[in-house]
Amino acid sequence: MIWYKKYSLQDVNAILAKNMTSFLEITAVDISDNALVATMPVTDRVKQPYGLLHGGASVVLAESVGSVASALIVNLEKFMVVGMEVNANHIRAVKDGIVTATCTPLHIGASSHVWEIKIRNEQDKLVCISRLTVAVLKKR
Amino acid sequence: MIWYKKYSLQDVNAILAKNMTSFLEITAVDISDNALVATMPVTDRVKQPYGLLHGGASVVLAESVGSVASALIVNLEKFMVVGMEVNANHIRAVKDGIVTATCTPLHIGASSHVWEIKIRNEQDKLVCISRLTVAVLKKR
Amino acid sequence: MIWYKKYSLQDVNAILAKNMTSFLEITAVDISDNALVATMPVTDRVKQPYGLLHGGASVVLAESVGSVASALIVNLEKFMVVGMEVNANHIRAVKDGIVTATCTPLHIGASSHVWEIKIRNEQDKLVCISRLTVAVLKKR
Amino acid sequence: MIWYKKYSLQDVNAILAKNMTSFLEITAVDISDNALVATMPVTDRVKQPYGLLHGGASVVLAESVGSVASALIVNLEKFMVVGMEVNANHIRAVKDGIVTATCTPLHIGASSHVWEIKIRNEQDKLVCISRLTVAVLKKR
Repeated sequence: MIWYKKYSLQDVNAILAKNMTSFLEITAVDISDNALVATMPVTDRVKQPYGLLHGGASVVLAESVGSVASALIVNLEKFMVVGMEVNANHIRAVKDGIVTATCTPLHIGASSHVWEIKIRNEQDKLVCISRLTVAVLKKR
Repeated sequence: MIWYKKYSLQDVNAILAKNMTSFLEITAVDISDNALVATMPVTDRVKQPYGLLHGGASVVLAESVGSVASALIVNLEKFMVVGMEVNANHIRAVKDGIVTATCTPLHIGASSHVWEIKIRNEQDKLVCISRLTVAVLKKR
Repeated sequence: MIWYKKYSLQDVNAILAKNMTSFLEITAVDISDNALVATMPVTDRVKQPYGLLHGGASVVLAESVGSVASALIVNLEKFMVVGMEVNANHIRAVKDGIVTATCTPLHIGASSHVWEIKIRNEQDKLVCISRLTVAVLKKR
Repeated sequence: MIWYKKYSLQDVNAILAKNMTSFLEITAVDISDNALVATMPVTDRVKQPYGLLHGGASVVLAESVGSVASALIVNLEKFMVVGMEVNANHIRAVKDGIVTATCTPLHIGASSHVWEIKIRNEQDKLVCISRLTVAVLKKR
């Protein structure tokens, strides 16, 4: 298990239930030994002006799930995690329904984490692929 | 002038006044011959759970201004523009106030555009730097 | 099969046997229905000044295998392929031996391809992960 | 001045005169208070099979100059610098001549550096734009 300790979905959703992740209804739906999965409904709040899922909203989802995953790995009394770099390819347009982001580790080091986040539509087709680099910093 | 024709701020803000860009109060504040500038207030809607500007929100701002810039360059009766790839480095935390994104062209080609978007805080310090690659496709 | 027609390893290596890919001894070692695999020896030609595999060399390997993969997908009499954007996370240092790049498709569209390239060391540990966006353009 | 101490071009070129940077004839040609400039000739060693500058070679140049710039900023007796993430947009094809990379800081922090590297051809047109994220780690 990559997590610092055993976390439940309720633990994760307590973190997400604030601010932007709450506003966009980003919700954790699965936490396994080495992956975190979250969903986001494709409402007007995450669409660009032409009615499709905003590419930036995909990145919000990707960075939210990757950042929370990093927070669940470290001892937050001693360390803090900071998103440094994020990138994404937008593969497929989405008009409605729910998208699902699956976050898996590419690297879990002492000073940085690298996550791959794949976002899929309800037909399980790839919508967006993202990579997030997180710095792990000692609290002072 | 890089734009397809003369556009006013009202033209640009009419596009932004819908869906996610409207919810996040992203507003164009300047359009010059070769740059587009937009602002976003740092409200709870764009903060991560710990109260700082969400990195993904910076990308929403970057991708919004870059995508609109691409739309203003082409003849939209014949072409459409699609965000392909976006990346961003998060440089500085922001707690409140307004952030300002300045979008300038790195490449304006027949089949693709590349934009640089720099987001700064109210003290004019760099918050985020992003690059957006947009495909220009013929309408069928 | 994602390829335009059946290609052998000899076909692929005939392309690679020139210029930079030849100089760095990049060699295709496997072509399956939907993946292309190539190796590169970690010689002085691909090391940075401190004796480790140069991160840029990993990108040369990634972009070489991705670009060739794109060339094998299209009808080269009518289309050409151009690398637009490449990104990479460097995960693990390599001192010597051979690294192996596996290139798999994330998206194969009419106007663009997106490839994931994972580079591993001889112990099958991840050295570098890269994503390459390729534009497919009509020849004039 | 962003550098740890005053460095001459000879100091920089002594670092580059080894391994890959030496083989590709990457040479520092200017070091100012806050920028480092290096050139690379477009020989067969840096061309892809079709005779144009290899996109990966642009990244080698970008990552070389950015990594050396980071090494010149820190006290190397106490810290080491490690390239974490690199990305690049390839803007313009180059057949021959010399390309020039200008590296300027986007962020110089205690635990990371972010560099922008612009590569131009002999007509001063943009060939490639790259961003490099470097981790600064304490030596143990």
